[in-house]
Amino acid sequence: MMTQQNQAEERAGQGQALPLQHVAKTAFISLLKQRWQEGYAVCVGLDSDYEQLPAAVKKVGSVEEAIFTFNREIIDATHDLVCAYKPNIAFYEAQGDAGYRALMRTVHYIKETYSHLPVILDAKRADIGSTNAGYVAAVFDVIGADAVTVHPYLGREALAPFLARKEKGILVLVKTSNPGSGELQDLPVGEEQEPLYQVVARHVAQSWNIHGNCAIVVGATYPAELARVRAIVGDMPILIPGIGTQGGEVAATVNAGKNSRGQGMIIGASRSIIFASRGTDFAQAARRATEQLDAEIRHSK
Amino acid sequence: MMTQQNQAEERAGQGQALPLQHVAKTAFISLLKQRWQEGYAVCVGLDSDYEQLPAAVKKVGSVEEAIFTFNREIIDATHDLVCAYKPNIAFYEAQGDAGYRALMRTVHYIKETYSHLPVILDAKRADIGSTNAGYVAAVFDVIGADAVTVHPYLGREALAPFLARKEKGILVLVKTSNPGSGELQDLPVGEEQEPLYQVVARHVAQSWNIHGNCAIVVGATYPAELARVRAIVGDMPILIPGIGTQGGEVAATVNAGKNSRGQGMIIGASRSIIFASRGTDFAQAARRATEQLDAEIRHSK
Repeated sequence: MMTQQNQAEERAGQGQALPLQHVAKTAFISLLKQRWQEGYAVCVGLDSDYEQLPAAVKKVGSVEEAIFTFNREIIDATHDLVCAYKPNIAFYEAQGDAGYRALMRTVHYIKETYSHLPVILDAKRADIGSTNAGYVAAVFDVIGADAVTVHPYLGREALAPFLARKEKGILVLVKTSNPGSGELQDLPVGEEQEPLYQVVARHVAQSWNIHGNCAIVVGATYPAELARVRAIVGDMPILIPGIGTQGGEVAATVNAGKNSRGQGMIIGASRSIIFASRGTDFAQAARRATEQLDAEIRHSK
Repeated sequence: MMTQQNQAEERAGQGQALPLQHVAKTAFISLLKQRWQEGYAVCVGLDSDYEQLPAAVKKVGSVEEAIFTFNREIIDATHDLVCAYKPNIAFYEAQGDAGYRALMRTVHYIKETYSHLPVILDAKRADIGSTNAGYVAAVFDVIGADAVTVHPYLGREALAPFLARKEKGILVLVKTSNPGSGELQDLPVGEEQEPLYQVVARHVAQSWNIHGNCAIVVGATYPAELARVRAIVGDMPILIPGIGTQGGEVAATVNAGKNSRGQGMIIGASRSIIFASRGTDFAQAARRATEQLDAEIRHSK
């Protein structure tokens, strides 16, 4: 039988206590605005699928060690060029326990080494209210992310435990980058037959964002829809994934997505950066790809 | 440096290989129909929030051991009365690594001990296509569940990696049990101004269910909407959570939810069963609560 202290220590060792208490907490939106003012808009998607890692990285040892090493090298090579990092948890969950630990170590590494850079956990969560408390604890307190992506379908009331975390970012899916996103998101709603994604964007901007901690997600593959969403949500931050491999074009994205200050965009690229080379030069190749995207964005503004 | 075999063994030890190869694979829908024919419709929600476990259970040792022990005792006390178990992963993720391992051990325990009972992982996942492959691997191959709940917002095309797993159950959120679910789910769509949840139900029944492996999720707190969904989807399985603590009433639920054979329902109760007692008699209390719900359902048919 364990004493309470034993249990507390064991839980801390398993990452269940707040692991980042020594890192100054700055609100997600403040971190983001600082990087925007410094001119950065690229968000590197750490979609670090173990199966696709360079052979040289897989040789470093365990699955956990390989994924973490890969991420650390990508981060060290790109940190001065980005406004945020965005690991997608699906690629880590696919590797079970080992992937989960690699994700935690990655987020902790960023927050300890580059604490001015926000981490968006792309987890696309959403359950009913009391259950969301579990996801909130997992995403913000165990893993330690600054922001998370969420599904809108259950409504604001269900997402209250997320929205109540004022210092965190809650990024709501509005128009997703996949080819079939229109099946439901473009359905005509109400007397004005307005596409559902626009209605969702309006709800988020007008009633979910009371703490100013919400953002919108619109895929780079839909620049016309991005422009309509920008018109609805004003200067709110918009995460725009799907540049590069998925086919989103930079100039069209920036034109459609920038806010009244020429900012407000978190432009996400994943595979086109992290898998720019599968050789031993993968980190340098990731830097070159990030530099190129950064330059294209600056040129388009 | 590890050899490939070392790596394979290490990965297997971390639960990344298929852990249940010795358990006969029967499709989710077949397991479910067998239990329905035997007269069972209760689905016990293993929403085993560590903070709420009986003090006697917390004393057994680590967080992992406590959660697993609690679940095992609930399962052993109720297995002959249920059609399925449904752990909600949010409560496990809240405990980090330890919770994740407790979840895996729970699912493996059910599949090894009561392999005729399907396990629905309530994870409410959904990402774009290529990313969903990671969730599919995590839910079905690492954790070993028979079925999973998914958000509909990204559409059928995005969910293809889930839908392609013919032997698994894909349970699509249609009308959720929370008080604010109407904010988006009741929006009037199209020329006929039909509520969005009905449109989603029709899409799932008519075009997502080509492998016959889909089911619908409608909260027990909305019996009128449940009846409309039943009319749309024919005899498809419907998962109906929210009986008990959330306020869903049994007779109204059964009347609205049963299909043409008087079956087709997975009636979910969580806290009202697993936390029926916080004393050392928690497992017996869970059995009594399950018996009572089972009797009410039989009486209502």
